[in-house]
Amino acid sequence: MKIGHKKKNGDVMTAKILINGYGSIGKRVADAVACQKDMEVIGVTKTKPDFEAKMALEKGYKLYAAVPERAHLFEEAGLEISGTIDDVIQDADLVVDGAPKKIGKQNLENLYKKNNVKAIIQGGEKANDAEDSFNSLWSYDRCYGKDAIRLVSCNTTGLCRSLYAIDSITDVLKARVVLIRRAVDPNDSKKGPVNAIIPSTDVPSHHGPDVESVIKKFKGKIISSAVIVPTTLMHMHSLMVETTGATKDDIVDAIAKTPRIFTVKASEGLDSTAALIEMSRDMGRLRYDLNEIPVWEESINVIDNEIFMMQAVHQESDVIPENVDCIRAMLQMEEDNIKSIEMTNKAMGLLK
Amino acid sequence: MKIGHKKKNGDVMTAKILINGYGSIGKRVADAVACQKDMEVIGVTKTKPDFEAKMALEKGYKLYAAVPERAHLFEEAGLEISGTIDDVIQDADLVVDGAPKKIGKQNLENLYKKNNVKAIIQGGEKANDAEDSFNSLWSYDRCYGKDAIRLVSCNTTGLCRSLYAIDSITDVLKARVVLIRRAVDPNDSKKGPVNAIIPSTDVPSHHGPDVESVIKKFKGKIISSAVIVPTTLMHMHSLMVETTGATKDDIVDAIAKTPRIFTVKASEGLDSTAALIEMSRDMGRLRYDLNEIPVWEESINVIDNEIFMMQAVHQESDVIPENVDCIRAMLQMEEDNIKSIEMTNKAMGLLK
Repeated sequence: MKIGHKKKNGDVMTAKILINGYGSIGKRVADAVACQKDMEVIGVTKTKPDFEAKMALEKGYKLYAAVPERAHLFEEAGLEISGTIDDVIQDADLVVDGAPKKIGKQNLENLYKKNNVKAIIQGGEKANDAEDSFNSLWSYDRCYGKDAIRLVSCNTTGLCRSLYAIDSITDVLKARVVLIRRAVDPNDSKKGPVNAIIPSTDVPSHHGPDVESVIKKFKGKIISSAVIVPTTLMHMHSLMVETTGATKDDIVDAIAKTPRIFTVKASEGLDSTAALIEMSRDMGRLRYDLNEIPVWEESINVIDNEIFMMQAVHQESDVIPENVDCIRAMLQMEEDNIKSIEMTNKAMGLLK
Repeated sequence: MKIGHKKKNGDVMTAKILINGYGSIGKRVADAVACQKDMEVIGVTKTKPDFEAKMALEKGYKLYAAVPERAHLFEEAGLEISGTIDDVIQDADLVVDGAPKKIGKQNLENLYKKNNVKAIIQGGEKANDAEDSFNSLWSYDRCYGKDAIRLVSCNTTGLCRSLYAIDSITDVLKARVVLIRRAVDPNDSKKGPVNAIIPSTDVPSHHGPDVESVIKKFKGKIISSAVIVPTTLMHMHSLMVETTGATKDDIVDAIAKTPRIFTVKASEGLDSTAALIEMSRDMGRLRYDLNEIPVWEESINVIDNEIFMMQAVHQESDVIPENVDCIRAMLQMEEDNIKSIEMTNKAMGLLK
């Protein structure tokens, strides 16, 4: 019986997903998977019995120790685990890795491949650590049926969406992007900067090539630089895209037609990343996640066929629906990327 | 007797400078003027008897009420004023205006022109409010002998210096600049953002045209966008300059030869705006002012004849030596801009 297809009794054969690392990305992917009709969370893992582990149990997820040797810590903390990752990994159709940077690659080599289970690793890993790099709009087909895929970072995902909108109406000759990156996620009280701007002095930054790992035809065309600034809410991108021609109206229309990216107006009070997050809080979004990419409509301008625009990226959440689509592609549950996007969006309650 | 020339007794005939508005810019210009051999501060004005007014008196500056009707406030606060601006303006060879945005233009029309005194207004005013826009490297000759000149903003001054270095070795075809602006000056505890990135949704921003008001030959070639971020120390610029060709070594050499701009190495620990300011504090600079523009050497890169580089701008102080040079130009005290720059730098103790 094929995953995602209906059984004789009308039930859908669901994909069994294990979340290895129930942290910033992992907990969000778990919730996004749990609300899909064609997949289920068979368990989540944690390395330690912290508040997130406790809340995973309260939500009804089966909890497993990510590191078998540390299983006793959970018992000592009074948290009921269903075993260690070794007890559950064979039951999974696919593992979504939510481990910190570099650990994902280790997990892929030492755990997922050895257990012959498909896996998604996150954007902190390198492009050549996996078979391919995933974005729902650009590389769904390429990742179809694959065993080990890297889901690109929040910034790369955001750029892939806006470049998809632009590419739908004109040809991209060269794109320059300056990324103004948030310092840390909101829950991180250890690191800074508190009052400084930190340049990424490797210019161009790695973000351009990372976009190119998804969009092969843009090879050598995306040049990026980045700075880190003292804010926690969102990243921001200033895009300058040389094209063969487009109008502002074309771009606004193209964004309207592209999934998971939308225009906002500073004139309506959405004049900063803080205002965007306030909107998301008012929308009642879980954890105030803004999975879609907002583009400031006033910032869109075309001069000499070069498109200028500014967008924001909610670093914690824009990749979450992409993880769900990636599962469908890798498990061959849906051939059409747009159909998968629509299923994911509907289940998650996304704008578009 | 001509200002700046030696009298028979060997003394230099000094230019009499009035500082109207002893605030962020005014107090720094006062100190920079006071240490030059060929000019003197005949007085400074304040609108209210605050700590800066008190410290002006302690430094030995003659204090005048900027608004005659408020003179009594100074007496009531126990601060000895030498009169109001009306009592001193006729004695000045030139007034340096340090008033807030838009007030400078009003002062020029209602005060300086009526009293037939030369005046410098600051970069918050618009280009067409004055006869021309000043930068020591680019428009000294144009402003020579003029009566009303605008000294461009800190960001524009910073860009004029780096573009001068680049222009000295290659031809600029198009420059794109993204400005990451500090939120407020360090003494401002009223405004934010505290945790947000604010886009300037007018893209391109006004900074490009402002550079072009100084460098006429770059008309239409400088495109800028800007965001405001939660930091107080310095602005930062990410430059992307299309040229007819240059190497990294060319650029480093050109920066070394250009006054008031220098390269720093992140690898030496100067890896953020905070580290740059720490360096300036360690240098013993008054108010930790870093009047020179630091460019991160690691960030300098050339791809397809396009120069990439990142620089920081100490918003409170980079324009200060330019004000001194502007005085010399407007009062025809020195014909050679490089000689004026050298005099100013030496007196202020600048690096170069």
